[in-house]
Amino acid sequence: MKSPAEIVRLMLENDAYSNWLGICVQEINEGFCKISLQVNASMLNGFQIAHGGITYALADSCLAFAANSFGNKAVSIDTTISHLKKVSLNDVLTAESELINKGKKVGVYLVHIKNQENERVALFKGHVHFSSEIW
Amino acid sequence: MKSPAEIVRLMLENDAYSNWLGICVQEINEGFCKISLQVNASMLNGFQIAHGGITYALADSCLAFAANSFGNKAVSIDTTISHLKKVSLNDVLTAESELINKGKKVGVYLVHIKNQENERVALFKGHVHFSSEIW
Amino acid sequence: MKSPAEIVRLMLENDAYSNWLGICVQEINEGFCKISLQVNASMLNGFQIAHGGITYALADSCLAFAANSFGNKAVSIDTTISHLKKVSLNDVLTAESELINKGKKVGVYLVHIKNQENERVALFKGHVHFSSEIW
Amino acid sequence: MKSPAEIVRLMLENDAYSNWLGICVQEINEGFCKISLQVNASMLNGFQIAHGGITYALADSCLAFAANSFGNKAVSIDTTISHLKKVSLNDVLTAESELINKGKKVGVYLVHIKNQENERVALFKGHVHFSSEIW
Repeated sequence: MKSPAEIVRLMLENDAYSNWLGICVQEINEGFCKISLQVNASMLNGFQIAHGGITYALADSCLAFAANSFGNKAVSIDTTISHLKKVSLNDVLTAESELINKGKKVGVYLVHIKNQENERVALFKGHVHFSSEIW
Repeated sequence: MKSPAEIVRLMLENDAYSNWLGICVQEINEGFCKISLQVNASMLNGFQIAHGGITYALADSCLAFAANSFGNKAVSIDTTISHLKKVSLNDVLTAESELINKGKKVGVYLVHIKNQENERVALFKGHVHFSSEIW
Repeated sequence: MKSPAEIVRLMLENDAYSNWLGICVQEINEGFCKISLQVNASMLNGFQIAHGGITYALADSCLAFAANSFGNKAVSIDTTISHLKKVSLNDVLTAESELINKGKKVGVYLVHIKNQENERVALFKGHVHFSSEIW
Repeated sequence: MKSPAEIVRLMLENDAYSNWLGICVQEINEGFCKISLQVNASMLNGFQIAHGGITYALADSCLAFAANSFGNKAVSIDTTISHLKKVSLNDVLTAESELINKGKKVGVYLVHIKNQENERVALFKGHVHFSSEIW
């Protein structure tokens, strides 16, 4: 059976979009993930702040890595995100997972997203479905 | 006062991320928006399907354009997305807004996201806050 | 195999809380449910409007009846509700399900809640998990 | 200006539904609330477990008390709840608010709902709108 770190390495290999986002893995443990990215000019919307889709993508990747690191392939069912603070060019966003509940088939996570000043910029909640397929 | 189409044109000008996504505006009316994008190789995750952040970004842009087209600057408060079907390379996704309720300060939208076969790939719900600032 | 109407009758039997709410079944078909209740004095909060929990309970029951009527026992995973309009004493609320997606294990529903003037008072979205247990 | 405890006392006065639920206030501070209830036979659904609307109502009341205790009248905009564990007859549920973000007009809260064994039974997230009206 693969380790959490090996699973995430496999997930990131050939992951073109995470590569484009410049996602850095800070920490991976069984069921836990902490990742970050830096906002560049391509990630800005017309208001010259980060598009909501960038913060969402970071949080959704964090959820995926955390949930898959248990060893079974997992897909997200539904997710919600509350945008709390504007994100600007060059900000460094860090997403950290918090496992709320793990059932046999469904897991619930919060993902906390903060900037380089340790201020919350978004709160994400996601449900995942654990399949029977092993990594 | 600017027309809905002028507002969205202003929003899209200098919007680097929407440009990167290749968002095409299909239809803009007061409070309504329909936009699309085609999934390219840079948008795929390690499973070789579109990253959830791509579908989210399209829906979030659709919400932003629809809500701002009323004439007051609007920001999203909270959004949820349910991913219903896998999205593959070269799929064309279309997002269409449905206004559920418009109060003085808060609006509620559904955004329906379908692929080129007219199959739902995601359902998005968002709340926006209308500011007093005029476009 | 039991019919949708039989399943809902079984669910309502010995359902003390639905009895307390005074839920009336308007229509049941496979995967579909429409139910109503009238707001009484016991359902009001300190502002003398219906407590949000009343509208939620009606929508959640509607989801449960709709999802179980396919024939497999189903439980809700996650639900969201947007409260759009105040609900007053003696208002009659009707909740109607809309099936958005049915997978093997997970289903997604919207539930539309309107008052006697046919005005939306809330929008509810729910995910259900279909078990292998048959009614 | 009224204290948090006075505001919640006012809210609970003439609150017929909270009275029916048997809500007990455990702790009120500025922006914070902890309340509980015990599940009785009238709160059960046809599966002889507590109806989802009961847990929701407790969480929604907790949100309302916490948000209004800042001193401005506050109403909830949208809420989500994840049901994590079955709730049985005679269980004692405690809901505790966690303020995630407070802007001028919008606040975001988590509400953690646990049973008498200190097990999570649900996780609730809510957005409130702070009006300019003072208690």
